Amino acid sequence: MAALFLLVGRLTNIQTMLRNRHTNHTEVPEVVVLRLPIYVRVLNQLIDQGTDVISSHQLGELLQMTPAQIRKDLSYFGRFGKQGRGYNIEFLMEELRQILGIDQAWKACLVGVGRLGRAIINYPGFSPEGFEIVAAFDSDPAQSGTMLGNITVQEMSEVPDTIKERDISIGVVAVPSVEAQGVINILIEHGIKGILNYAPVAPQVPSHIIMRNIDPVLSLQSMTFYMKDLL
Amino acid sequence: MAALFLLVGRLTNIQTMLRNRHTNHTEVPEVVVLRLPIYVRVLNQLIDQGTDVISSHQLGELLQMTPAQIRKDLSYFGRFGKQGRGYNIEFLMEELRQILGIDQAWKACLVGVGRLGRAIINYPGFSPEGFEIVAAFDSDPAQSGTMLGNITVQEMSEVPDTIKERDISIGVVAVPSVEAQGVINILIEHGIKGILNYAPVAPQVPSHIIMRNIDPVLSLQSMTFYMKDLL
Repeated sequence: MAALFLLVGRLTNIQTMLRNRHTNHTEVPEVVVLRLPIYVRVLNQLIDQGTDVISSHQLGELLQMTPAQIRKDLSYFGRFGKQGRGYNIEFLMEELRQILGIDQAWKACLVGVGRLGRAIINYPGFSPEGFEIVAAFDSDPAQSGTMLGNITVQEMSEVPDTIKERDISIGVVAVPSVEAQGVINILIEHGIKGILNYAPVAPQVPSHIIMRNIDPVLSLQSMTFYMKDLL
Repeated sequence: MAALFLLVGRLTNIQTMLRNRHTNHTEVPEVVVLRLPIYVRVLNQLIDQGTDVISSHQLGELLQMTPAQIRKDLSYFGRFGKQGRGYNIEFLMEELRQILGIDQAWKACLVGVGRLGRAIINYPGFSPEGFEIVAAFDSDPAQSGTMLGNITVQEMSEVPDTIKERDISIGVVAVPSVEAQGVINILIEHGIKGILNYAPVAPQVPSHIIMRNIDPVLSLQSMTFYMKDLL
């Protein structure tokens, strides 16, 4: 249990703190949505440890949240626990997975097969969680036809057909900053609904597109605020 | 200006939304600290565009925040703007850089030189922002002595001396999940103050250590909540 204690230290999106998304889910604050995957991860680890039931108090300790906050978060989606009985972990986890849409598999394509792109495609964390990168593209024709694991790198001109044929909904963008907006425009134009952007820029996307940015520099820059007085 | 509009979509730490850090900076909410690097980035781009002065209203538009929120954020650190005059961009940016501690250079070491580690060390975003990876370690003795760019990979036994001699304060952890806690313990024991953790686990660190986790799976899992109804 103790090993889960800091599970709350996780990446998310500062947009959350500024405003909620304009979607059909306006009744659920995005900050709550961002916490759900962390709930799922904790519940999953509890199941692995053989635990069946957990109280909001115990869950709160694991997540460093108050029991009231947890009950409030979950109340957006219905009633999961019985007063004084705690939550059935397996049931709660399955419900949350369904709510998040992670009870299904998602297909992604990668654009940009430089060092970062290659690391992303080899990242072992995606596929066990149901996110599969099934195609890779690069604007450099010299990359076309090369193999990344069992994926053949394709030219950008093949994006439209591939997205359609392979039913790809997520685009993972690992191109240089100057190319990011153009690549994202192409992906969206051809039906991609979600963008995971690794380029250290802030691309613009239409409001119906979901984008998350992975930017380690911003993380480092908010660490040094606390570190500068420790030296 | 328009290109900056979505600059708020950025990584941060969900811990923020759960509690504030227990540091000497308790008076500043962590959510504010997490926003400061984004302010700096926007201000920097404004300077590049030749802008000298900006109102909290205009800054709010760029950041998708209310002017009141911006004034409140900045008020934690003093008075930066004159009523009705707006902010001097260069001055505000330099002050914020100093407050964040990013007006100085920071040395980091990398642990784990697999595909992810190699991508990290080649990531072009760190060094222009003053974060330099000056050493790399791997638990696999076969890696010892190999070159990553101009860095020679060292054995883990060389961690203590290297941290001390090179004055390294940040540890970037790119080892498999099962090794992460052990590696982080060693780094902290030998004086590292900040951890940027890429392993998809939640290591425990003492309260005086600053840790950020980079976990793209959690980002994807909070995207699908919105995407599942779009398909």
